[in-house]
Amino acid sequence: MLYFENDYCEGAHPAILQKLIDTNFDKVPGYGTDPYCASAKEKIRAACSAPEADVFFISGGTQTNAIVIASMLNRWQGVLAAATGHIAGHEAGAIEYTGHKVISLPAHEGKVSAGDVENWCATFYADANHDHMVFPGMVYISHPSEYGTLYTKRELEELHAVCARYHMPLFMDGARLGYALTSEGTDVTLADIAALTDVFYIGGTKVGALCGEAVVFPHGAPAHFMTMVKQQGALLAKGRLMGIQFDVLFTDDLYTRISRNAIDTANALKKGLADKGYQFFMDSPTNQVFVVLSNSQLAALEGKAKFGFWEKYDDSHTVMRIATSWATHMEEIQALLELM
Amino acid sequence: MLYFENDYCEGAHPAILQKLIDTNFDKVPGYGTDPYCASAKEKIRAACSAPEADVFFISGGTQTNAIVIASMLNRWQGVLAAATGHIAGHEAGAIEYTGHKVISLPAHEGKVSAGDVENWCATFYADANHDHMVFPGMVYISHPSEYGTLYTKRELEELHAVCARYHMPLFMDGARLGYALTSEGTDVTLADIAALTDVFYIGGTKVGALCGEAVVFPHGAPAHFMTMVKQQGALLAKGRLMGIQFDVLFTDDLYTRISRNAIDTANALKKGLADKGYQFFMDSPTNQVFVVLSNSQLAALEGKAKFGFWEKYDDSHTVMRIATSWATHMEEIQALLELM
Amino acid sequence: MLYFENDYCEGAHPAILQKLIDTNFDKVPGYGTDPYCASAKEKIRAACSAPEADVFFISGGTQTNAIVIASMLNRWQGVLAAATGHIAGHEAGAIEYTGHKVISLPAHEGKVSAGDVENWCATFYADANHDHMVFPGMVYISHPSEYGTLYTKRELEELHAVCARYHMPLFMDGARLGYALTSEGTDVTLADIAALTDVFYIGGTKVGALCGEAVVFPHGAPAHFMTMVKQQGALLAKGRLMGIQFDVLFTDDLYTRISRNAIDTANALKKGLADKGYQFFMDSPTNQVFVVLSNSQLAALEGKAKFGFWEKYDDSHTVMRIATSWATHMEEIQALLELM
Amino acid sequence: MLYFENDYCEGAHPAILQKLIDTNFDKVPGYGTDPYCASAKEKIRAACSAPEADVFFISGGTQTNAIVIASMLNRWQGVLAAATGHIAGHEAGAIEYTGHKVISLPAHEGKVSAGDVENWCATFYADANHDHMVFPGMVYISHPSEYGTLYTKRELEELHAVCARYHMPLFMDGARLGYALTSEGTDVTLADIAALTDVFYIGGTKVGALCGEAVVFPHGAPAHFMTMVKQQGALLAKGRLMGIQFDVLFTDDLYTRISRNAIDTANALKKGLADKGYQFFMDSPTNQVFVVLSNSQLAALEGKAKFGFWEKYDDSHTVMRIATSWATHMEEIQALLELM
Repeated sequence: MLYFENDYCEGAHPAILQKLIDTNFDKVPGYGTDPYCASAKEKIRAACSAPEADVFFISGGTQTNAIVIASMLNRWQGVLAAATGHIAGHEAGAIEYTGHKVISLPAHEGKVSAGDVENWCATFYADANHDHMVFPGMVYISHPSEYGTLYTKRELEELHAVCARYHMPLFMDGARLGYALTSEGTDVTLADIAALTDVFYIGGTKVGALCGEAVVFPHGAPAHFMTMVKQQGALLAKGRLMGIQFDVLFTDDLYTRISRNAIDTANALKKGLADKGYQFFMDSPTNQVFVVLSNSQLAALEGKAKFGFWEKYDDSHTVMRIATSWATHMEEIQALLELM
Repeated sequence: MLYFENDYCEGAHPAILQKLIDTNFDKVPGYGTDPYCASAKEKIRAACSAPEADVFFISGGTQTNAIVIASMLNRWQGVLAAATGHIAGHEAGAIEYTGHKVISLPAHEGKVSAGDVENWCATFYADANHDHMVFPGMVYISHPSEYGTLYTKRELEELHAVCARYHMPLFMDGARLGYALTSEGTDVTLADIAALTDVFYIGGTKVGALCGEAVVFPHGAPAHFMTMVKQQGALLAKGRLMGIQFDVLFTDDLYTRISRNAIDTANALKKGLADKGYQFFMDSPTNQVFVVLSNSQLAALEGKAKFGFWEKYDDSHTVMRIATSWATHMEEIQALLELM
Repeated sequence: MLYFENDYCEGAHPAILQKLIDTNFDKVPGYGTDPYCASAKEKIRAACSAPEADVFFISGGTQTNAIVIASMLNRWQGVLAAATGHIAGHEAGAIEYTGHKVISLPAHEGKVSAGDVENWCATFYADANHDHMVFPGMVYISHPSEYGTLYTKRELEELHAVCARYHMPLFMDGARLGYALTSEGTDVTLADIAALTDVFYIGGTKVGALCGEAVVFPHGAPAHFMTMVKQQGALLAKGRLMGIQFDVLFTDDLYTRISRNAIDTANALKKGLADKGYQFFMDSPTNQVFVVLSNSQLAALEGKAKFGFWEKYDDSHTVMRIATSWATHMEEIQALLELM
Repeated sequence: MLYFENDYCEGAHPAILQKLIDTNFDKVPGYGTDPYCASAKEKIRAACSAPEADVFFISGGTQTNAIVIASMLNRWQGVLAAATGHIAGHEAGAIEYTGHKVISLPAHEGKVSAGDVENWCATFYADANHDHMVFPGMVYISHPSEYGTLYTKRELEELHAVCARYHMPLFMDGARLGYALTSEGTDVTLADIAALTDVFYIGGTKVGALCGEAVVFPHGAPAHFMTMVKQQGALLAKGRLMGIQFDVLFTDDLYTRISRNAIDTANALKKGLADKGYQFFMDSPTNQVFVVLSNSQLAALEGKAKFGFWEKYDDSHTVMRIATSWATHMEEIQALLELM
């Protein structure tokens, strides 16, 4: 079975496991105060060209979204997000559970436009009754988006500007950030992201780690952020598990190197499928490939290759997602292309 | 430096790390639906003699407490706990953050008595205004308690009975459960716990795992428990990390064997300290040893051994906690005894 | 100044004030256990042909919505509502503050269609990942809607059926219910509403009371509803204030009689405006009249008549709402028509 | 039947009802923006000698407590209160429902001492693990307390000082404030309270109003307080109901005059009972009289006088509360004394 269902089906990069073994019996203090966390944070600050940044490690994406958003919003505020954003639809109401509304904006291939943010906020503040409504308090974007698409630097600058104008932090969900940074043609660097957002996270779970996301506040974290992490149940006693993983990922640029593998394999796949005449649902420049398959094509793959169901295209076709990752081998792509 | 500050200062049992390596490139589905989780659950059910039990894995103790309690309480209910219970004082208000009151009961060396539960509930229901008050909805106990003390089987039976009488689930926080089960003289087995509680968890973080607690509902979990775990941000994409660890811990009784090491080393320490005339703060039969040290004794240990501060005893004495673990070597105990 | 800005600009029906005076020094128990509440509940049950109904009084609409929804949803559920529904946009996030998502459905002149509910639920349950999403747990409708429109009995039957199919209660916000029941051409009675919904409320604030909404659970209230009302801060010590008002409103059909006045005056207004060639934004059969006015028409009314701003129609026109109420005099309508 | 069960068993002061009638058909804007609210606020500011104060009206005590506390605490903070405080035991968990812990302090006849606050905070900040705990964020006191006792000016100054030292607002629940201000021997004025607290409320429900409490922030309200009131469901559309009541109560010092009646009648009652040799549970200088009655005394009153049950004193005696109010007639006291 060729398994392309998602980008979190393998374990961790072997260098991480090796470092876990090498450090296993070092006795270190808990809750993220260990030297591995300190080292990882320092390397991340350097990679982001953000020497003043506060960095925290949280075990998963939904948890990170819920903690970051709830810690930065005031009670009367909600978070603006694309209608297709992960927080809007696929987190079981984790944001609302903390008491905040997710305000839907139109999605443009998974992305939020600065113009839509501007319109929403302008309309809100022009409404004489806006004191009876949920205030816009933050903008959430994902990069890559849930559709694998990317913001350009120009688009991020515009979002940054409209957020500044309305005094809202800009939050980037980077669950797959490595695959954005290494996509061909992107003009957005980690330093750009640190310069243009107020908080973002560098996904580990989907990019080589067993678990963990590195939250970066380029201009400093909210007061008592660590206590809020604890209050939401996310402060691991053995913080070393996070520190070691990110320390390895940010040593010798490992994070970038393994991310590029997902892009290379996805590109090879896309080229092969295009050559064979397959139809793509949308042009996605990162590690997720969305193809439109007929029922008979799907049936032919049954038991041989596993993709992710995305949505029905029409009565006889389905959109399927094929995901590569840091761990995908080019041989698997070849085998898949031979199969299809 | 001899490090006895806590029982989560090392990494994981080497067999866990080995299994992580061995399985690393197996491609498995996410969110706890992988075969390692299935295997671990089956072994845990067997160890608990609870074939009908539902088992879930959550990454840490505070998170587990918050999720279990919030999923089992109705909105008008609070949870009864010892004033010294972990949820009452050391979880940054994680329970209240979910909207529920922690109702304090007197602590008897860290334990809750069935009599106090009975009194509280009887007084509550006798109060004509109790519809204006928080209803008792669950009893939380920790075993070992925060003071390292243990319930007897008789005490658990009494708690079980009073909980049944008032239709409240009994919840056991087993963050250090291995050290309870292997304590000399305990008459409480894992099967007893499964029989006498409605939900409990088997601590991994403090007993050989990198992270993770195994929540066991002997009579079945609340409906939609998995969605509630997701809603509280605790559903790991790579559920394999949990499954593999608990699968290893419950293979060939590893959990029990490594737990016993903490008891053996703690017992050796207690005997050695008693022989030297040290005063104990309380009799604690598990892996935490509470000693009363004078200021000069403390000063003499400075830079040589690290314990946990517990509380001031009087102006010139302090209660310190010395914790052993699954990873403590008897040589470290000898070295410590020589030092003290 | 002719004041038509809203339907809550006057005080209470004089019969209510008189009854407050007549009963003022009667000494009665608190929290809704007084004889006026009992009498009012009995009369409401009779008016609804719902002898088994539980009835509660809550001081305002947003509070009622938040309490009813939070008391009937499970934690993993959200409430489906029209995108234009009051809870979706004009309650400052009161529903989300209780931890629940408001799921937006398309609005058809302010109304929800059974077909849209069916589609949403069918798509939800067909999604293999729905355990990671917010479950549909209730349908919220307002009757009249925020646009003054009404459901037909047939539409309510269809909504009732789809809700039953998906095990969701149907909740009707009746903040202006009197104006629905007395609208010309409606085929929906109070008994129909009691038969076809699981909970609804009879608005007092906008229909003759100083404050207060009567929540009716035709098939019985959730367990401990009164404690939940208290927990959300809405249990008035002097429940008599509510009981007396609704007792008066439901004596000799006063509620219906005064509601009809709003309809009669609105109808006279609509006829007069139509005769003068004014353009209506939509056909609204209750007490809210939506007209499209040019900038110069608006300027001419400045300082002479006060309407509610609704929305911009185009660069030179605005939609304005003119609201009548139980207290509007036909003379005011005549004066307004002369002015316009 | 002589009814002394509580101080909210009558309606409103007749002057309030008269003003409701006189203003009934004035058309005014909603949500507290009407001229009656403006006038009432101005009079309250003057009565408090707090010209900069922000004043809001909320319909009941529990709601006010929940709104004020939730609006002033940060997420990581709880509120310190006497174990006997209303928020600690008799509000169905309304504070916890907003996510915050109520931290119990020892009660001294219902009161909190500055020394206990100081001790609690000093211990908290001295604990190296306090980042894992709920921070002290506010002190809640009630004046009169739930036992009818009063703070002296000196005690309030000390509480003010300790709160300032730890950067916590001091919040006074004044549900029965009139009965505190008019108690014989008190040295605390409304101006003192405005000077020594950060927020307090002037109870209307128990002192002559149908409903309503006036919240006073002497140094200004939290940003967006009105939106938070709306979010918690407490913003009445007809804010006039609140404004009119408090405008009347603060015209010509009516609030003080009617409060004094409760004190005068309570004092007459206490003197009469003392003369007859009745035992008091505690010395309570306001409108609540706590007497210890034997079972046979209780039986003799059955059907003739109604008091409030307070607590069991011993097997054969019960503590009962006798409450007077602004509306109690001296004749009722005489009748009661004749009966007892």
